[in-house]
Amino acid sequence: MSNLATIGVTGLAVMGSNLARNLARHGYRVAVHNRTYAKTEALMAEHGSEGDFVPSESTADFVASLERPRKIIIMVKAGAPTDAVIDELIPLLEEGDIVVDGGNAHFLDTRKREERLRQHGLHFVGTGISGGEVGALEGPSIMPGGSKESYAALGPILETISAHVDGEPCCAWMGPDGAGHFVKMVHNGIEYADMQFIAEAYDVLTAAGLSAAEVSDVFREWNTGELDSFLVELTAEVLAQVDARTGKPLVEVIVDQAEQKGTGRWTVQTALEMGVPLSVIAEAVFARSASGDVAIREACRGELSGPERRLDAERQQLVDDVRQALWASKVVAYAQGLEEIRRASEEYDWDVDIATVARIWRAGCIIRARLLKQISEEYAAHRLATLLIAPSIKQGLAERQDAWRRVIAGATAAGVPVPGFSSALAYYDTVRAERLPAALVQGLRDNFGAHTYRRVDVDGVFHTLWAQDKSEVQTA
Amino acid sequence: MSNLATIGVTGLAVMGSNLARNLARHGYRVAVHNRTYAKTEALMAEHGSEGDFVPSESTADFVASLERPRKIIIMVKAGAPTDAVIDELIPLLEEGDIVVDGGNAHFLDTRKREERLRQHGLHFVGTGISGGEVGALEGPSIMPGGSKESYAALGPILETISAHVDGEPCCAWMGPDGAGHFVKMVHNGIEYADMQFIAEAYDVLTAAGLSAAEVSDVFREWNTGELDSFLVELTAEVLAQVDARTGKPLVEVIVDQAEQKGTGRWTVQTALEMGVPLSVIAEAVFARSASGDVAIREACRGELSGPERRLDAERQQLVDDVRQALWASKVVAYAQGLEEIRRASEEYDWDVDIATVARIWRAGCIIRARLLKQISEEYAAHRLATLLIAPSIKQGLAERQDAWRRVIAGATAAGVPVPGFSSALAYYDTVRAERLPAALVQGLRDNFGAHTYRRVDVDGVFHTLWAQDKSEVQTA
Repeated sequence: MSNLATIGVTGLAVMGSNLARNLARHGYRVAVHNRTYAKTEALMAEHGSEGDFVPSESTADFVASLERPRKIIIMVKAGAPTDAVIDELIPLLEEGDIVVDGGNAHFLDTRKREERLRQHGLHFVGTGISGGEVGALEGPSIMPGGSKESYAALGPILETISAHVDGEPCCAWMGPDGAGHFVKMVHNGIEYADMQFIAEAYDVLTAAGLSAAEVSDVFREWNTGELDSFLVELTAEVLAQVDARTGKPLVEVIVDQAEQKGTGRWTVQTALEMGVPLSVIAEAVFARSASGDVAIREACRGELSGPERRLDAERQQLVDDVRQALWASKVVAYAQGLEEIRRASEEYDWDVDIATVARIWRAGCIIRARLLKQISEEYAAHRLATLLIAPSIKQGLAERQDAWRRVIAGATAAGVPVPGFSSALAYYDTVRAERLPAALVQGLRDNFGAHTYRRVDVDGVFHTLWAQDKSEVQTA
Repeated sequence: MSNLATIGVTGLAVMGSNLARNLARHGYRVAVHNRTYAKTEALMAEHGSEGDFVPSESTADFVASLERPRKIIIMVKAGAPTDAVIDELIPLLEEGDIVVDGGNAHFLDTRKREERLRQHGLHFVGTGISGGEVGALEGPSIMPGGSKESYAALGPILETISAHVDGEPCCAWMGPDGAGHFVKMVHNGIEYADMQFIAEAYDVLTAAGLSAAEVSDVFREWNTGELDSFLVELTAEVLAQVDARTGKPLVEVIVDQAEQKGTGRWTVQTALEMGVPLSVIAEAVFARSASGDVAIREACRGELSGPERRLDAERQQLVDDVRQALWASKVVAYAQGLEEIRRASEEYDWDVDIATVARIWRAGCIIRARLLKQISEEYAAHRLATLLIAPSIKQGLAERQDAWRRVIAGATAAGVPVPGFSSALAYYDTVRAERLPAALVQGLRDNFGAHTYRRVDVDGVFHTLWAQDKSEVQTA
């Protein structure tokens, strides 16, 4: 038996370090490397006893310590740092070796890197890894792209260290080149929507007079039912937290300006590029930006009129309604996000299997939720134009849509902003509409810009001579 | 007196040809040129008698026919065709000459071109021109960027041929390099929002039983009041149009899938890049995309449950409410769009004057509206953190917000999608909120990702040790 390492990790900040430990705990001999050796030494000192690590000070030694085909996971910052590591690795590697980027790279960068490494006879695997620091250590959801061949060598290892549900790993090959990072990007976009819905639910419930502790109890109960999910569980925990300094609920002393790191924005920008409606995630991203516009908020606070912030509703009824609004809105965000994946898969020839995507999101990742099991099963069983028409989902929406509408109407009347809930419902009502007023938009565009229109009854392209006798001409 | 031309236009499709005629009609000697000479000949044959044109077959002759500093307006397709013309022009031009791009270029491309031409000692002016074909001929709204020096030579000519309001031209220097095209981009984004609101108003009114002809009458009346605008006027015209083939209202035989050409998308992508909330325009762009998702709409139509599409409301009350919802929503779209311009101005050091932007949008362009006079006056009179707090606007919103909420609640209950109205109201309620649930989002981010948070009572950056004893540590 060789004493070479099975797999290597370079970049030993918390995520990389925890991933290396996860691999070692599963019995793999893991080569570890960091630009500054001190971090490697720290890992060895603190966790070296957890498994079979092979530390190296230089990149050359690190590469030499790996069995072939080499499997190297890069866990450094996205962008220039990733390219710097790749540049250093390329001359040291040999044909068939596999370079894995486990950071949050933009899928278009991943496509370029994959092409570049392919020209060197190397495999490049852009992989999404979700679950935060704890997930990296205890079992994340892993979304690798890249060549199918690379997955044959790499997949079994990643599957072993990933989260599992009913014995099934939350790791699967997503598709060629950028597919893995694309799926991870949409995962993060959905995460923005999930958190926005949770925030709106909290806001509505507090406007009805519930305290943070009471809303915490509501979320804890929700977590035993259809909303069972990691983020709902955490919400119960966060809302229950009492600030030691003031004795108030922590949530009431945190500055109410939400920050963001960029993957939500990418998800929406990409959807715009492809013409995929992603309104709900867009609202979630913009809600964060708006919360951080301090100058505007300070100028408007107390200046702009609104109704009294008070939702008059029977409490249990309201809690039930909000739960249903949250579920229904969440379904729409997933429908939009999965459609973005489907469209990208078509555009880039990835052949991504949506059932598999939902399956590997069931555990390990931030958006893990009971709903994902349902989504996975529906996609496995049916060919679906959209998640919304999956039988059990459609039924769920039908049962909840009255409550959903009540919550939005109530919040609207009480001046509680619900951009996420509203946008989700608007999408639902848009796609089910018999006719949309988009026909008027087309008429207007034809009037001021001669942009033409099509007719429902005759094939062809038409234009009305608005500035002349208003007769219609066929232009194609 | 020289017999050289004062200004030249190359690219004689309808927009370029109409712009050249507009210049000639105002007494300028206009050099005209087109890649295929036949178009130049056609212009001369049809419109040569309207003024003093100097046609040239070759680019060299075209350039030679111009007095110095040469002023050349390029009116070809954005992208590669524009660059091809620029490449051909550069060696023929001399220091101080001015090249104007009148197409819808992306402002970042304009910035690159401006820099390139500057290195050749040339001025490059990216200019927005709005008003469609008719505007180009009869007086468009013109939004030039580029050097201040170039505007000294070019401005008086462009101001002469632009639309005028009370003797004031709808043309002004917007700022350096990409400022003109940026302002035009946001103009187009706002145009998307305006049209979406109009479409929603129409949809709500028809759901209350009004016919297209009745809604046309409503818009015609609205056009005499606070909603007075080009698009409201056109809406009355489009809705009144009876289809000759079927005898039905034309709007009912137009395919209800709205198309788009890309500037709306750019506006939103840029806002995401800069972190500016532009939710309303995003909803308008996505509403168009959603209307065109035929496969999804066909799968959902008749499958997804909804309430009966019937708005029960006293007709005059509803019409009044919808008018107010439209005005208030429109104000929010303008507030968001103008904020995007302000932020870009800051980021790129353009020093754009918002009052001037609103002033030159009062006539000539597609979004021209009575509201723009009010906006221009408010910005001229006050330093505003946002349009929403301009005294007359704030007052207008206060008076209309009840009606706005009623329309959204009514549409929500009746299953009529109002993504634009809802998004606008959500933004209004967001910026005026005392506290936002964004604090909970920050708490969640700190919990699963150790992203930290700030406190309302103490400076610094904090993290709760969620997985340990839940005590708080200060990290910065």
